[in-house]
Amino acid sequence: MPSIQAIRSYQKIVFFVLFNSIFWLPPTMAQSTSDEDAWTLRTIYSNTLTQGGSYEWLRSLTTQAPGRLAGSPASIAAVELTKQIMDTLGFDRVYLQACTVPHWVRGDKEIVRIVNSAFIGSQDLKALSLGNSTGSGPAGITAEVIEVFNLDTLEKLGNSFISGKIVFFNRPMEPTQLRTFAAYGGAVDQRGRGPALAAKYGAAGALVRSMTTSLDDHPHTGATLFQAGEKTIPALAISTLSADLLSRELKKGKVQVFVRNTCRMLKEKSSYNVIGEISGTQYPNEIIGIGGHLDSWDVGEGAHDDGAGCVQSIEVLYQLKKLNYKPKRTIRAIMFMNEENGLGGALAYADSSNARKEKHLFALESDAGGFTPRGLGFSADKDVFENYFKRVNGWAGLLEPFDIKINSGGGGADIGPLRNQKGLLGSLQPDSQRYFDYHHTEIDRFEAVNKRELLLGAAAMTSIVYLIDKYGLQ
Amino acid sequence: MPSIQAIRSYQKIVFFVLFNSIFWLPPTMAQSTSDEDAWTLRTIYSNTLTQGGSYEWLRSLTTQAPGRLAGSPASIAAVELTKQIMDTLGFDRVYLQACTVPHWVRGDKEIVRIVNSAFIGSQDLKALSLGNSTGSGPAGITAEVIEVFNLDTLEKLGNSFISGKIVFFNRPMEPTQLRTFAAYGGAVDQRGRGPALAAKYGAAGALVRSMTTSLDDHPHTGATLFQAGEKTIPALAISTLSADLLSRELKKGKVQVFVRNTCRMLKEKSSYNVIGEISGTQYPNEIIGIGGHLDSWDVGEGAHDDGAGCVQSIEVLYQLKKLNYKPKRTIRAIMFMNEENGLGGALAYADSSNARKEKHLFALESDAGGFTPRGLGFSADKDVFENYFKRVNGWAGLLEPFDIKINSGGGGADIGPLRNQKGLLGSLQPDSQRYFDYHHTEIDRFEAVNKRELLLGAAAMTSIVYLIDKYGLQ
Repeated sequence: MPSIQAIRSYQKIVFFVLFNSIFWLPPTMAQSTSDEDAWTLRTIYSNTLTQGGSYEWLRSLTTQAPGRLAGSPASIAAVELTKQIMDTLGFDRVYLQACTVPHWVRGDKEIVRIVNSAFIGSQDLKALSLGNSTGSGPAGITAEVIEVFNLDTLEKLGNSFISGKIVFFNRPMEPTQLRTFAAYGGAVDQRGRGPALAAKYGAAGALVRSMTTSLDDHPHTGATLFQAGEKTIPALAISTLSADLLSRELKKGKVQVFVRNTCRMLKEKSSYNVIGEISGTQYPNEIIGIGGHLDSWDVGEGAHDDGAGCVQSIEVLYQLKKLNYKPKRTIRAIMFMNEENGLGGALAYADSSNARKEKHLFALESDAGGFTPRGLGFSADKDVFENYFKRVNGWAGLLEPFDIKINSGGGGADIGPLRNQKGLLGSLQPDSQRYFDYHHTEIDRFEAVNKRELLLGAAAMTSIVYLIDKYGLQ
Repeated sequence: MPSIQAIRSYQKIVFFVLFNSIFWLPPTMAQSTSDEDAWTLRTIYSNTLTQGGSYEWLRSLTTQAPGRLAGSPASIAAVELTKQIMDTLGFDRVYLQACTVPHWVRGDKEIVRIVNSAFIGSQDLKALSLGNSTGSGPAGITAEVIEVFNLDTLEKLGNSFISGKIVFFNRPMEPTQLRTFAAYGGAVDQRGRGPALAAKYGAAGALVRSMTTSLDDHPHTGATLFQAGEKTIPALAISTLSADLLSRELKKGKVQVFVRNTCRMLKEKSSYNVIGEISGTQYPNEIIGIGGHLDSWDVGEGAHDDGAGCVQSIEVLYQLKKLNYKPKRTIRAIMFMNEENGLGGALAYADSSNARKEKHLFALESDAGGFTPRGLGFSADKDVFENYFKRVNGWAGLLEPFDIKINSGGGGADIGPLRNQKGLLGSLQPDSQRYFDYHHTEIDRFEAVNKRELLLGAAAMTSIVYLIDKYGLQ
């Protein structure tokens, strides 16, 4: 029934094409680079978007080795799986590198229960033990809760207020921070050192508000730290909704909580980094390392953290081979073991590299999720940073058509120990808005990763590796 | 059991804070603007992120008025709901504006079935009738399928090849386009004009590959166009997986498909735009209009398309009021009716505005999803564009700390008819990678929208509205 509406509908299509579409523009040329580089980057992006392997590798990793905390059977499945994947891709070498890792196990499903509120009666809170926490013993513990918002307050309160109580750390991640990693950095001391400090003043246990800006019912686990000789206590994350509920009850009066968790630290275990490499044709002992971490927390599937970074790192080598590019330097994809609770893999890798007198000209880490990339961040020892950064910043015009900014500041936990080699360190910087919705939870699953976003990150990584290998950093 | 791992874990936390966090930096000052503006934008962002209403308004809209195609009862529920929401927010005026809209209804669940393949036997394809399509009649039709990849080929094939057949348009959205809207623009002619052209050459029906780069089983509906006097035929979208399956079968031999759909166009109906405004203190007849469209397709909940744009538009006024900002110009939030299949609301709005001799100094549309904003795009009549763009580009430094780029090119279907008023037109440009996963499908639901991403878009919109109102465009 064609009518005036039909014509209007056509107008809409015309409007759409005119105004809403931002058509692809060929890469603009930066002064210091060539048309060939622009063409190569465009090819890297096109190949990755149409023939990239990352998404299917991630599907395998998350479904065949979910919950792959260091020391777990799943972590060894992940080692075997990623080696098998790389074995099929025609790299020059694929090998395992031994490391020692802690072996912490969660035990039974945790119970955190408000037991005495006159207002709401008995109420279960959503909780997960923090990694490195000790257990309450099978009988559990019951104690009064005291809420604090920062570690300084805890120190001021001291033994008389804290002893025998369960300390509840409840400072939220700051929602007004545009970058959620900054908000995380501003709150995570509560999880990292809060429980040990509470233990020092005689606390019976610690509860920590989950590290997320989202208000939901997923507890977010993560590592807490008890240093050698420090007293340990049961330490658990509770969901942000549970934290708000507990805080409200505390405003009404005293609250007793029952905590039962049976997590424990077992004996250290042997594990492995998984490494694939393409040998350098001119400077084989100069390394460009690209990495993510293979371990994850034991809940969820470790899709964004950090299955994404692992498969993107493999993709870099895969795409360089597809380009038929013969690198001058040795290009290495490293799946680090044990980033989450020990850095056993990262330290073994750096030790081995130093012993072989390698130099990492560049090390790039992807450990901020598989979301749309917005930039690449760089850091280095201060003696060398300025020169290096000037060099990479010279390629800003080549990367700008792909919406990739070159930023100062970057690196990561796994490549941090390589800093002494005085090369350039970098990190992929994806959009961070959703990351902490999933981080360290049961919902960090394959379905949360978008194929195009994941592949675009890999293409950005491949592009910067290509440029640094081709031109060096001098 | 504190050990070397505990110390390593601490190292990790230190590394994390040093390298991964990009701390918030206060907005840098652009030369043409003041510290006060930087402070105001920072306040807009903080207020929106902590006290924004968008997300809960979107929850109401998507749950109380899902599938709100123009003419449907749900579309009227949406009118009433958004008016009620704005009535509580203390705007100076909230009112309805009448418009005429088509009333197309989907009818029974569509059947598209391969009936004769020797290879796979009978096989149902996932399909949705396209808006404005006619129905097959209750008995359905069965015909041979012919696959084409563009409209030119169809014209060359002509009557002798096309007559009596079902034409299958199967050119994919180009995955190598970085901007998915560009890929959409490059493929949507098949949906918009393919069926009418097929009908011209005697086709019995048309199937169109869904407009998405995703390979999945969700058919994506959308408008097709039959102009006055053109013959109409049943026209349906099939999922990309169904399209690939059908294409494979066609490579093996002839394929007959049974199509049954009972959609039809009813009589035109009255409907409404919903408008809220804050009166200008100095130039009340100069308008800054901010809009999204209130209607959606009848499948899914219209969360990204375009519930997001509606609630963000309301948020702009809400945040300006929170700031206690008294605008010089009249600031108006417009929920346009009938963007999806007629633009009835947009044309009524422009007609009314012209009749009242208003001038829209600026009109801003949000209709590209509730994802993390990456930029604001601008267009205008060519006589005025250069001056206007220079002006807004002068604020790039103020918006840069919020990761918002000022881009040339923007606008939208609903504000397009205002172009004659020679004001500036603009659009919010969110990250586009996921948009076409959800577009016009059953999975465009509230859960697909992230609260922070939605609010950041609203904050970007509020910021540019504030600057344009305060400084004008001369």
